[in-house]
Amino acid sequence: MRSFSSSATAATAATAAASSSSKSNSIRHLISISDLTTPEFTSLVNRAEYHKKLIKSGDKPSNEISQALIGKLVALIFTKRSTRTRISSEGAAVYFGGHPMFLGKDDIQLGVNESLYDTTKVISSMTSCIFARVNSHSDIQQLCQHSSVPIINALCDTYHPLQAICDILTIKETFGNMKGLKLAWIGDSNNVINDLAIASLRSGINVSIATPPGIEISKFIIDKANEISKETGAILELTNDPKIASKDANILVTDTFISMGEESQKLAKLKQFEGFQISSELTSLAAPNWKFMHCLPRHHEEVTDEVFYHENSIVFPEAENRLYAAIATIEAFVVNKGKFI
Amino acid sequence: MRSFSSSATAATAATAAASSSSKSNSIRHLISISDLTTPEFTSLVNRAEYHKKLIKSGDKPSNEISQALIGKLVALIFTKRSTRTRISSEGAAVYFGGHPMFLGKDDIQLGVNESLYDTTKVISSMTSCIFARVNSHSDIQQLCQHSSVPIINALCDTYHPLQAICDILTIKETFGNMKGLKLAWIGDSNNVINDLAIASLRSGINVSIATPPGIEISKFIIDKANEISKETGAILELTNDPKIASKDANILVTDTFISMGEESQKLAKLKQFEGFQISSELTSLAAPNWKFMHCLPRHHEEVTDEVFYHENSIVFPEAENRLYAAIATIEAFVVNKGKFI
Amino acid sequence: MRSFSSSATAATAATAAASSSSKSNSIRHLISISDLTTPEFTSLVNRAEYHKKLIKSGDKPSNEISQALIGKLVALIFTKRSTRTRISSEGAAVYFGGHPMFLGKDDIQLGVNESLYDTTKVISSMTSCIFARVNSHSDIQQLCQHSSVPIINALCDTYHPLQAICDILTIKETFGNMKGLKLAWIGDSNNVINDLAIASLRSGINVSIATPPGIEISKFIIDKANEISKETGAILELTNDPKIASKDANILVTDTFISMGEESQKLAKLKQFEGFQISSELTSLAAPNWKFMHCLPRHHEEVTDEVFYHENSIVFPEAENRLYAAIATIEAFVVNKGKFI
Repeated sequence: MRSFSSSATAATAATAAASSSSKSNSIRHLISISDLTTPEFTSLVNRAEYHKKLIKSGDKPSNEISQALIGKLVALIFTKRSTRTRISSEGAAVYFGGHPMFLGKDDIQLGVNESLYDTTKVISSMTSCIFARVNSHSDIQQLCQHSSVPIINALCDTYHPLQAICDILTIKETFGNMKGLKLAWIGDSNNVINDLAIASLRSGINVSIATPPGIEISKFIIDKANEISKETGAILELTNDPKIASKDANILVTDTFISMGEESQKLAKLKQFEGFQISSELTSLAAPNWKFMHCLPRHHEEVTDEVFYHENSIVFPEAENRLYAAIATIEAFVVNKGKFI
Repeated sequence: MRSFSSSATAATAATAAASSSSKSNSIRHLISISDLTTPEFTSLVNRAEYHKKLIKSGDKPSNEISQALIGKLVALIFTKRSTRTRISSEGAAVYFGGHPMFLGKDDIQLGVNESLYDTTKVISSMTSCIFARVNSHSDIQQLCQHSSVPIINALCDTYHPLQAICDILTIKETFGNMKGLKLAWIGDSNNVINDLAIASLRSGINVSIATPPGIEISKFIIDKANEISKETGAILELTNDPKIASKDANILVTDTFISMGEESQKLAKLKQFEGFQISSELTSLAAPNWKFMHCLPRHHEEVTDEVFYHENSIVFPEAENRLYAAIATIEAFVVNKGKFI
Repeated sequence: MRSFSSSATAATAATAAASSSSKSNSIRHLISISDLTTPEFTSLVNRAEYHKKLIKSGDKPSNEISQALIGKLVALIFTKRSTRTRISSEGAAVYFGGHPMFLGKDDIQLGVNESLYDTTKVISSMTSCIFARVNSHSDIQQLCQHSSVPIINALCDTYHPLQAICDILTIKETFGNMKGLKLAWIGDSNNVINDLAIASLRSGINVSIATPPGIEISKFIIDKANEISKETGAILELTNDPKIASKDANILVTDTFISMGEESQKLAKLKQFEGFQISSELTSLAAPNWKFMHCLPRHHEEVTDEVFYHENSIVFPEAENRLYAAIATIEAFVVNKGKFI
């Protein structure tokens, strides 16, 4: 088919262009927490905390910060609708004086009217960075390959790094010392836990993941986790039993059981996840200081109202922290061009 | 149903949260002109006039004004399309250095993917204020109950306060002294006249409302009007005869006969409103200095071209004044946190 | 029909208003390159080059530039989707400190809910300028007639001036001296070549246009071209043979064969344009330093991958230059109110 041969040629052209351009190779993109070193990830969390304190203090940030992106566009290419990701990304761009430009699926269709290669070349030539919320991880990879500006992965089917930065910030604020905490994920194997597991282990937090039988965490994540365990001492446990994961957990986390695009499988999914709803039965097994987290929007099948609106639920501070995670990300990848401070 | 029980719990949670938070209680929202005192409303009109003069003079506003919302988002949650309300709200946010973020019905659906409580908590945690254009007044009430930032009612089925501020500014500019003028509303009983009647009486303008038989102004507005009459001396007259309302009127106002959502009743509505089109027959009964006003968009059944494009029609200066009304509103409710100057 | 009589009256009213207002008459709008003098057009290209160099140098523009539109809205009324035009227009508004407000076909429908006259009066009263991407040239003309702020034609069915400014900038950067170059257009007779032909001739570039038999360049453009030839010495050649046009050409340009709205005629169009695909067969006839240009998005039938991704293809620098063309346009028509420097 034409579009195939066209994009094959485009990819070849891109490879040639990339290999002749040291600039393109030196750009740091945020694809996944697994691409970052532990000090780099820690720096992002610390800077998110710093900017949050600055904003909450009511003090104005320095001109260097508030004018860093003045006169510049920040593109948001979102093929999926999103409340939190959109608002936090726009807010972060505005914090640095930039102008967020939201391009939804009705504004731009990646790969439909022109090749992803062409679109990426054009958009990156007129903007300071691109937040991309896409379906397929390969779209993120192609964007990174062809873009002349930093790409921020604002969710793909494999990773969700902005959520992981936000979540570790939230845990750090709540517990102070993170070393030796236990985080229990009770739910699906998806983009959110992929990055959250890596981020937690990098922060010294032990991770226990309970998924239904037949749903497995990807081998790449397990291998990466084992590698980080040697560095930080934190360990990853995998189980099919929510009770084992919940036992003595300081943090209980879940997410939707039915990801976007899986709506037709809803009934089968609900059956598969029987017993995985986080309720007082599970929190009673957790540590006395347990907290509940969720990236939102929540559905009833994942968590009872009792837990979701419990005083130990920190879902709303967690949501707000998305803003500071996006701010730290723009600072590191765009303003400081991949240098972490 | 699940969503019902969920939002019932959410409401309970919200009540608990609100009662434990004095911050939430102290926020001033703009819901309706009837919530404001007469001096507060007068202050809004005067500040709108002040900012208009400043802008028209070509002088730059002070840094205190032009940077008041710098680095901050202003959310526009609009479940209905709107030209004037959107542009004026965005323009007002930009005047103070803020970044308006438009969220239409394709961007966010209040209460569909998650409870209104959850959405409000999240959006208000990342923005400086929320302009909300909704269908039901109860949505505005819920937003106000759960938001941690000021809510500006940018139209609901019961009120339209921004239009009323704009209209009184327009009348003040046109006539100077407003005491004793007569404003005739010839049309439907709706959100626009609800706030315009209160706003006019607060400004010393007598109000005569002609609606077709069977269409009544709500008792709450009539009671409020009587209360304000005692304060300002201006009186409210209700009739079913456009000619009685038009008699000696200084200002003739109308609006669509068919509100959004009522399109299926168009024929019945048109029949009900026979004789209510504002034409030279009615303006000939008015005061010699009569002016015609309309919040736009206009339809032919409400007003003839002769009147609508007459030199006595002030509909376009009125539309422009929406901008200054929104500016005064942001200044009072967001920048000055509910203090009126 | 009602809407007809309404807009007839509106036009009458507008004419009356315009004739009574010297302000309205003195506004300069960007409708087409053919409306500009040669020095005015040259100034736009030079200023685009100036701002590009400034931006590329990493230096901040002066406060006079970066704050020229601070606190102001720049409306983008786009009835057609567009990647390049949207991003470049938004980026240009942001460069001057303005806030671009994108109004797509779901946000506003010109002439549907209210007359174009009414909408134009209202929007122009609250904004600093309007970028309009419309279907019909008559819409641009009406906008210009009724607007109180500059209208920038961001594509209509007859002209595409922003693309022409961008293209001449790209040619100037690539070749330095433009006098005596030959530009070959191989494709449809459309809005892009209309303005590009005029712009090239104004720049001393000879133009050869090859269209299929039965597709003619409009007489107005030919007459205008002959007029400019006398001024600059550059000549316009018309042919039905792509090989004649390509012969010794320094620049080969094409665009889609199937414009928006013509999708149903795709097969017939493809047949009509047989032999018009730009391939190595045509570039082998061109001058040794040939360059390929295209306003994008490209389709396979217009140009082979070999030419499109050739090292002599300058389509991506060309696309980026849309930003600087829009910047020069805002500077001349909005910031400097129609004075060219």
